[in-house]
Amino acid sequence: MDITKFVQLSLGRWRSQRSAHHLAFAHFEQVISTIDIVPLASDDADVIALCKSYEIAPELATDPFRMTWEGESDWEEEEISQGTTILVPIPDPNEPQKGKLLRDRGYAETIPSVGNYQINEEGVFSLLTPYDRAMAEEKIWFCGDNVRFRVSLIKTSAGSGVVTASFSSEIRSLNEKKS
Amino acid sequence: MDITKFVQLSLGRWRSQRSAHHLAFAHFEQVISTIDIVPLASDDADVIALCKSYEIAPELATDPFRMTWEGESDWEEEEISQGTTILVPIPDPNEPQKGKLLRDRGYAETIPSVGNYQINEEGVFSLLTPYDRAMAEEKIWFCGDNVRFRVSLIKTSAGSGVVTASFSSEIRSLNEKKS
Repeated sequence: MDITKFVQLSLGRWRSQRSAHHLAFAHFEQVISTIDIVPLASDDADVIALCKSYEIAPELATDPFRMTWEGESDWEEEEISQGTTILVPIPDPNEPQKGKLLRDRGYAETIPSVGNYQINEEGVFSLLTPYDRAMAEEKIWFCGDNVRFRVSLIKTSAGSGVVTASFSSEIRSLNEKKS
Repeated sequence: MDITKFVQLSLGRWRSQRSAHHLAFAHFEQVISTIDIVPLASDDADVIALCKSYEIAPELATDPFRMTWEGESDWEEEEISQGTTILVPIPDPNEPQKGKLLRDRGYAETIPSVGNYQINEEGVFSLLTPYDRAMAEEKIWFCGDNVRFRVSLIKTSAGSGVVTASFSSEIRSLNEKKS
């Protein structure tokens, strides 16, 4: 599994079932959402702009993509959570299983972020993203071509305490296009 | 991380927050439980009996332990789920990061089971347990000494489809002893 294969497997529409555990209060949150992941061209203007904002040469980017989600949480029933973000992998030239992942809007804070990813020999993609006041740690792996799992931890910025842990089960939707 | 270190970190009382995703129906289940993990002596009669039932020499066993749980599910509100099981690691003499895990009662079926475990270089303990009509796949890892996470997948016995995926966030309880 390399980053190209990982992104290719990720492309498409996913039905996501997510549970968040707010650890201090043993509180549960449940979200059902639809996630669309579509490839972007390497010369896409937004991809180039994102690379430049981190002073990274755009030709180092590989397999950029856009992720769009729309979900309903049982916690804030009135609110439909939705968003879109561009993600740009920048593989490490010396260690192709590692690299940086640029995104124009993060999970934990609504600002751009850059994380460090690594893909292990079991095919688990791990991503560590430091934010100003928090640290996000994600693990994503596939189970066959049509099921993927995602564990996201939000830690205090020192990395010592886990604040929120969430788990997503994602199933590829046969209905690829939104009606 | 080896099996001895893994078992030692696991010992104690844990408050567990578990979410199960029944994938076909996008159904959620939530369980709060208390888990106690206590070490057993190598010459414990139950440990020896379990080894013998699998025709494994008891002196190959290392760090046997008992796990006891008591939980409340939001799905079966009337019912308090509880149970206890003995677990006996049998490390592979040639590859110490791998081995068998015997248990006298499994998750997926109420019969004894033997699974194959492996601990990777990131410290993730993976366990694959075949049952008659299902296959269970677990990943357990620590985040510091006092937090651990557990992902359990129940698959069809052919291993092709995931039926249930569950995620547990477990926090070490400071109140080690039950009052």
